[in-house]
Amino acid sequence: MRLEALEAIENRDWKRAKDILSSWAAPDIAELFREIDPKDRPIILRLLPQDLQADVFFELDGNTQEYILRSLPDEYVKSIVDELDPDERTRIFERLSPRLLRRLLNLLSSEERKEALQLLGYPENSVGRLMTPDYVAIKQNWTISKALEHIREWGKDSETIDIVYVVDDKWVLLDDLPIRKLLLANPEDLVQSIMDYEVVSINADQDQEEAIKLARRYNLIALPVTDSEGHLLGIVTIDDLLDVIQEEHTEDFVKYSAIEAPPENIEFLTNIKEAPITKILRSRLTWLTILLVMDFITGGIIRAFEDTIARYIVLVTFLPVLVDTAGNAGSQAATLVIRALALETVRLKDWLYLLGRELMIASILGFIMGLGISIMGIIRSGSLKVCLVVVLSMIINVIVGSLVGVLLPFIFVKMKRDPAAASMPLITTLADIIGTAIYLGIATLVLGL
Amino acid sequence: MRLEALEAIENRDWKRAKDILSSWAAPDIAELFREIDPKDRPIILRLLPQDLQADVFFELDGNTQEYILRSLPDEYVKSIVDELDPDERTRIFERLSPRLLRRLLNLLSSEERKEALQLLGYPENSVGRLMTPDYVAIKQNWTISKALEHIREWGKDSETIDIVYVVDDKWVLLDDLPIRKLLLANPEDLVQSIMDYEVVSINADQDQEEAIKLARRYNLIALPVTDSEGHLLGIVTIDDLLDVIQEEHTEDFVKYSAIEAPPENIEFLTNIKEAPITKILRSRLTWLTILLVMDFITGGIIRAFEDTIARYIVLVTFLPVLVDTAGNAGSQAATLVIRALALETVRLKDWLYLLGRELMIASILGFIMGLGISIMGIIRSGSLKVCLVVVLSMIINVIVGSLVGVLLPFIFVKMKRDPAAASMPLITTLADIIGTAIYLGIATLVLGL
Repeated sequence: MRLEALEAIENRDWKRAKDILSSWAAPDIAELFREIDPKDRPIILRLLPQDLQADVFFELDGNTQEYILRSLPDEYVKSIVDELDPDERTRIFERLSPRLLRRLLNLLSSEERKEALQLLGYPENSVGRLMTPDYVAIKQNWTISKALEHIREWGKDSETIDIVYVVDDKWVLLDDLPIRKLLLANPEDLVQSIMDYEVVSINADQDQEEAIKLARRYNLIALPVTDSEGHLLGIVTIDDLLDVIQEEHTEDFVKYSAIEAPPENIEFLTNIKEAPITKILRSRLTWLTILLVMDFITGGIIRAFEDTIARYIVLVTFLPVLVDTAGNAGSQAATLVIRALALETVRLKDWLYLLGRELMIASILGFIMGLGISIMGIIRSGSLKVCLVVVLSMIINVIVGSLVGVLLPFIFVKMKRDPAAASMPLITTLADIIGTAIYLGIATLVLGL
Repeated sequence: MRLEALEAIENRDWKRAKDILSSWAAPDIAELFREIDPKDRPIILRLLPQDLQADVFFELDGNTQEYILRSLPDEYVKSIVDELDPDERTRIFERLSPRLLRRLLNLLSSEERKEALQLLGYPENSVGRLMTPDYVAIKQNWTISKALEHIREWGKDSETIDIVYVVDDKWVLLDDLPIRKLLLANPEDLVQSIMDYEVVSINADQDQEEAIKLARRYNLIALPVTDSEGHLLGIVTIDDLLDVIQEEHTEDFVKYSAIEAPPENIEFLTNIKEAPITKILRSRLTWLTILLVMDFITGGIIRAFEDTIARYIVLVTFLPVLVDTAGNAGSQAATLVIRALALETVRLKDWLYLLGRELMIASILGFIMGLGISIMGIIRSGSLKVCLVVVLSMIINVIVGSLVGVLLPFIFVKMKRDPAAASMPLITTLADIIGTAIYLGIATLVLGL
């Protein structure tokens, strides 16, 4: 099917392309878009049935969306934007250039414009940006059958009716009720008879990461969003959270390898095939430069010990293995801490306990690595004294490197920064600086220069 | 509340502890368990209301579960295991020691034992291990009202009724219907009148990662699981998938920092506060040793160029910055490729295209880094020739390191291994070996030794 569709598009056989694609699911069409010429994308989109167009459009990446919006006439853009859900609109709008955003806002009805502007008013990465006001609310003093009737009437426009929300007259959230509970209950009973008045909700200003934690923790498929007085503002559904999880994962991953990852960059960092090269360059260059400068310190340390090195050239052959092993052990330690902090199995107050544990683990690792290098030390240097220097340095280096790896993520958390910013390249560079100083220091002492 | 509960437990005031905890949600109690003495955990669990016990038990980590199972009498263990859902049972059983597993299986009714053994029969990390047979199935020739009645009758035992499944007489899956569609339809119509015969399903033998991709792609909250003939076997719900996503994320993360992460190790690698030190040691030692041996190669290369170094000791001061920068650039490139492969924005066939793009990006990065180091080169060496060697090596090193970073994940995929196993420490170690050879090679050539 995929090949047939691509062939039809290549041959400009629009009728056939339309026939094939009309029965596809939106995500599959969006994926196909990646393989076709950007100029053809607006054409193909227009071929699709009206209701499919908005779905496909939403699944596209930001660059393609912007390109399509720019290349289509207003009335056509309007028909797509009209079909989108409020939360989908927010997610597209927040990525647009201010000029294009203004054009799109003008296409909306005044009520929808108000809604869009309100959702865009919440801070970036806040729950407010993810929520949709399309939910079903019922009252506690209604009968179950009245509630079900209300759901039948209003459910069509709702993002989910798997869960409905009970509010009081001031629209304060009282409870969430799975539709299943309503269905299985006696229709004549009052709604309040099946309520447990226990509901997990989140404030619209809170971070999206908090919403993920709540959803995961309490196994929720939708999370009600309230203001600080408890009024129900909207809901966030799990499918939107899944996308956020993916993004957070990417963010952690790239940050941890010393790539700058502000939220607006995440999207093209995941789509390296099409992302503009200048953007990739910029996000890689910052840390490469910082680390380059830090490496000059290591160079400076070596320079300070040039006399030692000149007398024992063989010392140089052990330098890479010593600093690398320290860096590797440190990266391992940092990874485990960063992950544990993210999963909340470890908290800031645990730093000292973990440091103590790591001291034990790293000592054992250090001794084993010291044993490993001792063989090479004897063979390569032929000197017991040099071998002693190398083994001793290895043990200390692995311990120090590992402790740096444990501490750095905690320090970043303490500084209110993402612990994943304690990146592996940063840790290995620190291990280089410290490890070189320890090694050449011990060498100068032991070899008595 | 948390402090009160901890205080009551510390004072052995079980009545008070029971009063406080009985109104808590299971995940919150499970979290509290981390902070109390392991010996007290079985006692606290027994205090809780019957239905809460199984929920709390399921939320605990594997070590604690095993400890509790060992320390409680059979009839008590049976009451917990009876309360668990089939998919929850599978997830607990698959982690138990064979002996404890046999004990637990014997406690089940013969029918439940059969079900448990069948679910355990699916390969590790397969969808079969995650699924539950508790779903609601309806027939296409029923009326909507009959279907709704059936749901009311069978829905109590089902894991979800947000979606029900239409099967034919041979139990072949025909469609999935959101309950909302049934509710909004005319009760006298036939089920088939609202069916679209389009359903995304997954085979029980497939990898759990595939289920995640499908759920994310098609925004599903439950995924039907079939055998190879299309018979409906069970469903996988999104809350279980969320846990798997977390685990996959952890797996990627630790693998990428050269920590061995077989599935059975993932759990304690995320809980480093309580994990046995021997297990952490073992998962870190393998790669540290491999990388240590690889570093000996770098040492060997340096040894081969000892004459060059002896004449130009200043060369050593530039060694760390040259190999580090190559490693850092390589890690960045590898991270972007690994992430793109995971998100499927890049496929195996794109390797050559991406290599070409990286050649361009890395050349620019290399020139900028070369410029950066040229200043230091002149100041430190005072020799234009040495400076030329350093700058030239930097450019080539950054390019080669980056290309290795792009290629390695593809090579791992080609070898049917996880691309994340192309770990950062592995890439930096390779960059060390190659970078050292390039640098000292160029030095020997240019300085005419």
